[in-house]
Amino acid sequence: MPIIEILTIGDELLLGLRTNRHLLWLGKQLAQYGLMIQRNFVIGDAPEVITETVAASWNRSDIVIITGGLGPTKDDLTREASAQALGLPLEFVPELRETITHQLAQRGAPFTDNNLQQCYKLKGAEILANPNGTALGLFLIQASKLLIMLPGPPAELQPMWSDEVIPRLRKINVLGNRTPSYLQFCTSGLGEALLATKLQPVFSQYEDLSITYCAHFHQIEIRLTSAKCSPEALRLIAEECRQRLGADFLGYGDCVLAEVVLCQLRDQKKTLALAESCTGGYLANDLTHISGASSVLAGGVVCYSDASKTDMLGVPVSMLTTHGAVSAETTVALAEGAARRFHADYALSTTGFAGPSGGDERHPIGTAYIGYHSPDGTTCSKHLFHGDRHIIKTKATHAALDGLRRQLLRASNPHA
Amino acid sequence: MPIIEILTIGDELLLGLRTNRHLLWLGKQLAQYGLMIQRNFVIGDAPEVITETVAASWNRSDIVIITGGLGPTKDDLTREASAQALGLPLEFVPELRETITHQLAQRGAPFTDNNLQQCYKLKGAEILANPNGTALGLFLIQASKLLIMLPGPPAELQPMWSDEVIPRLRKINVLGNRTPSYLQFCTSGLGEALLATKLQPVFSQYEDLSITYCAHFHQIEIRLTSAKCSPEALRLIAEECRQRLGADFLGYGDCVLAEVVLCQLRDQKKTLALAESCTGGYLANDLTHISGASSVLAGGVVCYSDASKTDMLGVPVSMLTTHGAVSAETTVALAEGAARRFHADYALSTTGFAGPSGGDERHPIGTAYIGYHSPDGTTCSKHLFHGDRHIIKTKATHAALDGLRRQLLRASNPHA
Repeated sequence: MPIIEILTIGDELLLGLRTNRHLLWLGKQLAQYGLMIQRNFVIGDAPEVITETVAASWNRSDIVIITGGLGPTKDDLTREASAQALGLPLEFVPELRETITHQLAQRGAPFTDNNLQQCYKLKGAEILANPNGTALGLFLIQASKLLIMLPGPPAELQPMWSDEVIPRLRKINVLGNRTPSYLQFCTSGLGEALLATKLQPVFSQYEDLSITYCAHFHQIEIRLTSAKCSPEALRLIAEECRQRLGADFLGYGDCVLAEVVLCQLRDQKKTLALAESCTGGYLANDLTHISGASSVLAGGVVCYSDASKTDMLGVPVSMLTTHGAVSAETTVALAEGAARRFHADYALSTTGFAGPSGGDERHPIGTAYIGYHSPDGTTCSKHLFHGDRHIIKTKATHAALDGLRRQLLRASNPHA
Repeated sequence: MPIIEILTIGDELLLGLRTNRHLLWLGKQLAQYGLMIQRNFVIGDAPEVITETVAASWNRSDIVIITGGLGPTKDDLTREASAQALGLPLEFVPELRETITHQLAQRGAPFTDNNLQQCYKLKGAEILANPNGTALGLFLIQASKLLIMLPGPPAELQPMWSDEVIPRLRKINVLGNRTPSYLQFCTSGLGEALLATKLQPVFSQYEDLSITYCAHFHQIEIRLTSAKCSPEALRLIAEECRQRLGADFLGYGDCVLAEVVLCQLRDQKKTLALAESCTGGYLANDLTHISGASSVLAGGVVCYSDASKTDMLGVPVSMLTTHGAVSAETTVALAEGAARRFHADYALSTTGFAGPSGGDERHPIGTAYIGYHSPDGTTCSKHLFHGDRHIIKTKATHAALDGLRRQLLRASNPHA
């Protein structure tokens, strides 16, 4: 197993300005091939610290991945400092000047003097193309070791990793025939303690099985790792868990709840409409992140105001006056209105108080009603979520999608 | 300025299971006092790696903060490994046993054998109380250096930092009378190279001024730090940048584009409506994350299907047939329809191809039209964004909000 170290460079990470997202992302990517990061160093834009850290890391590891500090400004020092650490010269590459000039021109921006420093590469390194920015990556093999330099912005690093780095790693057999040595599945709707209690009878049958729980709100990822079990044996253990969990089992691998729901709707040839008050577009945005959403999502209305509930979704004014906008009655009327106006089979609606202002004695901040319209009728559930505005919107969105998922599960298998 | 290093311990951080949230949080806390982290090391639960890393860090720094690995399980090795690194013995503290027993009893749990390892402390260290868990913190002063050990879960670490660590740092004058020695402002619409070129004439006047750029798409945060300049002097430098940048200057501090736009609308007593095709609710969701959005955002429609464009927003069928859904004409009609249906002063509309499927010869994936309706009329801009579906949605949302921001800026100051 190669020793892999990641150097993440940028003052913004040490100053509390930005989360280091690369460690999680690269860790996940490498784990897919059974590889593990040994160390991650986060350091600032100080050339002597970068040089010293790169040199030590290069000395200790088989693969060093450096992220950040490849931009055009004065604090972008990774190239120079790494060249010094490895004792290699930097070479000017005239073609890079052309590439960068062309890219900037597409955005209507000029090539400025500070872009010049982006046209240098370490002697012997291959250039990794960056269609999403001017910071090119580098890939260097030296004395059976590997140096990979990637740009800091995730929108540039991630495609470069998949499109430029992975094929090269495959070519030099670093990925070999490795297969994932773990198996992951996701659950929805159960807390971690209860989930662990439910699954303990399964897990306790197997020695040498390592179980990692990772919770985001009420979606929990469970990763099973074992040095002894074959992938097939892990699959059987997970299958036993699936049986035991029933509707709380979401799926294998990395599950996205919105994607699961869209697949169910597509399989059942049904369409969906949305009427979002307290989630304010979160549901629509979550669903439309998934490619192919357009074939299932007829549309949605973000209906913050009373007028929009009435004009756009046909909620009677008298209902708003009698019951209020945050009520079971209005929530049901919104779901029905959305289904009718968008000619959809299913509809979800949300009303509530996401805070920090709003709410009343009967409905404190965090209260949310979720309406479910289906060909069988319309129902409504009431929730009290804790957290800030963003968290309350997130939890209401999860709850709405999970409720719909369970309804579609029953519709596809009415005798289960 | 003391040299501060943070050691973050836990396999889950290297396996792609968990984001390292401590660096951002502690970085922000320390920055409030003008202190900066020099290095952050993320390492796994391997005792020899912990010992080696703690020893090197202790050697190099004035303050070492270790997070994680203080729990009761077999992979919690921080105490033992750190004691070895510093050459200090571990002492059993009988009172800790009582404290932990009491805490567990409150949760109805017994004191188990593995809790015993949590009753040891490094000789000479003070204990940091943890009302939220059984992992106690440690605070050790030795040879004018400081070792601070904190539990891994953020819900335990964060209160311990504020309630136990900060008062001790104050007492030994580490925080002194420090005030934030940095100033941050945000810009929107310019790339990093062009921005640096524009501001270089300002920055080059000042020695000892350190400048950090941090880009998300086309919003860039700039932080100015100086050991010599007073906060007032930094403010004057930033003010000079603001003058030079004009409409590209977004604001001081942490700016959220959606919040800036909502404030402008509120100040001008105007309302906004949305018609989102390719952004699919991203705009609505972004705006409704901001508290008080309801007073400005009249509502929005996510109009994926042609039928929803016609039925909900009054786009003529003939227009869709003649020009297509992704066209300047339809985008303008959507913005006007949204303003009309929601009775709003301003409206934004988006159409385009977010990929990975869709698009045609004239309109490749990444094409987006953005429509702007204002009391003065309706305009439209055409863009070509690069990236995956999520990134294209994000960029289109940024562009739409930034375009509206510039329009509102002109409206508020027509002679500028």
